[in-house]
Amino acid sequence: MNCEVVAIGTELLLGQIVDTNSSFIGEQLAMAGIDSHHQTKVGDNHDRMVAVLRQALGRSDAVICCGGLGPTQDDITRSAIAEVMGVELVRNETIAERISAMFSGRGRPMPQNNLLQADVPEGALINPAMPGTAPGLICPLTGEHNGKVIYAVPGVPWEMKQMMAAGVLPDLQRRSGFTGVIRSRTLRTWGQSESGLAEQLDEEIRRLDVTGDATIAFLASGWEGLKVRITCKAASDPEADTALDREEEIVRRIIGDIVFGIDDDSMESVVLQLLRERGRTLAVAESLTGGLIGSRLTGVSGSSDVFRGGITPYDRELKRSLLGCPDVPAVSEEMAVAMARGVCRALGADSGLAVTGVAGPAPLEGNEPGDVWIAVHYDDETESRFLKMPFDRERIRQFTCIQSLNLLRTRILASS
Amino acid sequence: MNCEVVAIGTELLLGQIVDTNSSFIGEQLAMAGIDSHHQTKVGDNHDRMVAVLRQALGRSDAVICCGGLGPTQDDITRSAIAEVMGVELVRNETIAERISAMFSGRGRPMPQNNLLQADVPEGALINPAMPGTAPGLICPLTGEHNGKVIYAVPGVPWEMKQMMAAGVLPDLQRRSGFTGVIRSRTLRTWGQSESGLAEQLDEEIRRLDVTGDATIAFLASGWEGLKVRITCKAASDPEADTALDREEEIVRRIIGDIVFGIDDDSMESVVLQLLRERGRTLAVAESLTGGLIGSRLTGVSGSSDVFRGGITPYDRELKRSLLGCPDVPAVSEEMAVAMARGVCRALGADSGLAVTGVAGPAPLEGNEPGDVWIAVHYDDETESRFLKMPFDRERIRQFTCIQSLNLLRTRILASS
Repeated sequence: MNCEVVAIGTELLLGQIVDTNSSFIGEQLAMAGIDSHHQTKVGDNHDRMVAVLRQALGRSDAVICCGGLGPTQDDITRSAIAEVMGVELVRNETIAERISAMFSGRGRPMPQNNLLQADVPEGALINPAMPGTAPGLICPLTGEHNGKVIYAVPGVPWEMKQMMAAGVLPDLQRRSGFTGVIRSRTLRTWGQSESGLAEQLDEEIRRLDVTGDATIAFLASGWEGLKVRITCKAASDPEADTALDREEEIVRRIIGDIVFGIDDDSMESVVLQLLRERGRTLAVAESLTGGLIGSRLTGVSGSSDVFRGGITPYDRELKRSLLGCPDVPAVSEEMAVAMARGVCRALGADSGLAVTGVAGPAPLEGNEPGDVWIAVHYDDETESRFLKMPFDRERIRQFTCIQSLNLLRTRILASS
Repeated sequence: MNCEVVAIGTELLLGQIVDTNSSFIGEQLAMAGIDSHHQTKVGDNHDRMVAVLRQALGRSDAVICCGGLGPTQDDITRSAIAEVMGVELVRNETIAERISAMFSGRGRPMPQNNLLQADVPEGALINPAMPGTAPGLICPLTGEHNGKVIYAVPGVPWEMKQMMAAGVLPDLQRRSGFTGVIRSRTLRTWGQSESGLAEQLDEEIRRLDVTGDATIAFLASGWEGLKVRITCKAASDPEADTALDREEEIVRRIIGDIVFGIDDDSMESVVLQLLRERGRTLAVAESLTGGLIGSRLTGVSGSSDVFRGGITPYDRELKRSLLGCPDVPAVSEEMAVAMARGVCRALGADSGLAVTGVAGPAPLEGNEPGDVWIAVHYDDETESRFLKMPFDRERIRQFTCIQSLNLLRTRILASS
């Protein structure tokens, strides 16, 4: 089974929007075990779109079209697919009523154009998910391309994602002759290289090659760490869950506490949750990162029950006046430790995190760019680390942020 | 002239990396007035790559291949192009020496594989920019595709960008028969909708359609505002600069002070520079944004001469204890004003910026998510604004950040 992706929209070609949809769809297909050898971007032009679709059907079993399902003149995906199918567009009254109902539900008048979204190629099936006013299409082909299929999903990411899960992937799996379910779980890790992880898991991956219980894939995600994705095929959802649980346990036993969370967890959401479970509060003192750590923590809904706040003593003198730090070098272990303790005191928190360092591009007081001290204060003890990073300003700051949160995470776990 | 883009790499198809290179190249081509109707992603597979290249040459005058120029077995762009050209790979000794010299300059032994990067298709020219060990290629075609050209650039973004500017775009322009220079300038704007801007500039755009002095394009960039790009063609660089200056002045006269900067300026770099020129210092008090504003300010190199630091009084009680705010509702004009003044006092800054609001998803003390008060303190006066944003948590925080920086910017400009 072989499926390619066609992303539609002149704005994609002009670079006004980066095409993240194709990447998402490619990842989903890979997870579902479906090959995808080509992804194409084409503009809002009927003839070119028809040509690209025909070409794709010439080399693949299925094509997912993303975008061009809106109500304006630019949105020509429906008619391009109809031409490839050799059929006319016909009004789907159920969809038309649903679109009208969506507008009246919001108390807004419906522009007549919106009903064009209910005109679908004759013979097309409708994707069971329809979160917006654009229906997703499942278009079986006959004639020259008999047995192949074109899917159409909107370019709006959250609409596309719902339709992929509800209609496209299940239909692809059915067509590929697989009748069970495929489920994945992603373990988020921090602190190990891709080759190091691959080495640690080498034996387990070989074992799985033989047993077929699961597959393991790595996904390097820069300063978000390395993702380890476990995928299991099973006859039913509960069986798949059991298989995932079992494999997760095996992998965790091998790679240990570098796993900080699963799926949608982030380092900051995990740290907040660990503190919440222990009834702790947190304050941060950020020199180098200037608020980045606080910003990430407060990006998590409900962080306010744990996070008391932060102080950014960017000017050196403020380290003394706001945090009571002694007169030691700005980038030093003593300073990081004093900042972590000081911010707990100043903000009335029982846990503290502090960073101080050089973001570059110039050296500072004998320290090179990328020289960073981090400290965490927890359970009346303060722990510190020196980091040396050969990176640019942005990466130095981002890696410092995640490293310091991870230090706090391991510190909490070590004391419980 | 018509040029398409082929991005090479299985990791792109699997969604492990989002293909931002094609978007960048598409934007550069659009700016240079070169049509680009297709962009394709293909994996590290020789036959499929050759097929995609032949297909692209069948419909376009030029093809830019991005990626697959590294020294490993996966990197097959060179040999795929050689097959399409109908030639062999030959060792380019100049490039081989340059690669060896790069390694010895860094005091590192050179893996022999790296010399494979010096094997280029016979007849290929080398891109004048070579920032890494991968040479960029300019490959003129003969025979069936006579007069057409394939460019190869690395997938590493900064290498690709240098090669686009130094070799690819000039060669494309020469081939398109244009002997002059094409230059662009981007005006960064904040505070006007795309349709509003288009309406304001409608008459000027029509005038330019007739005179051909310049072209104007809009680029919506979410919470980074709207970009207005002016492009001029001229016989020489100085003439192009003069034409850009003239058109920039006309556009600024029409759209006024919503223009906050040009090209690589950001809202935060502009605000820092305005304060720097006036010998001022800045402190921020961030409740809602939790450090995001400080993080963006300190992301700019050299911010430390202006930015003294920040306080994030996320817990309500800290607004009083750290900033001396009175007992007023947390999300109110009085609170924002008191925070802006208080942070100036606490941090010894003469300019202050404060935000307080509800990021959601739940309402807070009678305020809906997206209800935000911002205040700026400058020249001993405090100014405030109420924002109401129908957005999600992330966008509420990001829009608040840029709105508050923009309020400070207009406040500074109004008093000088």
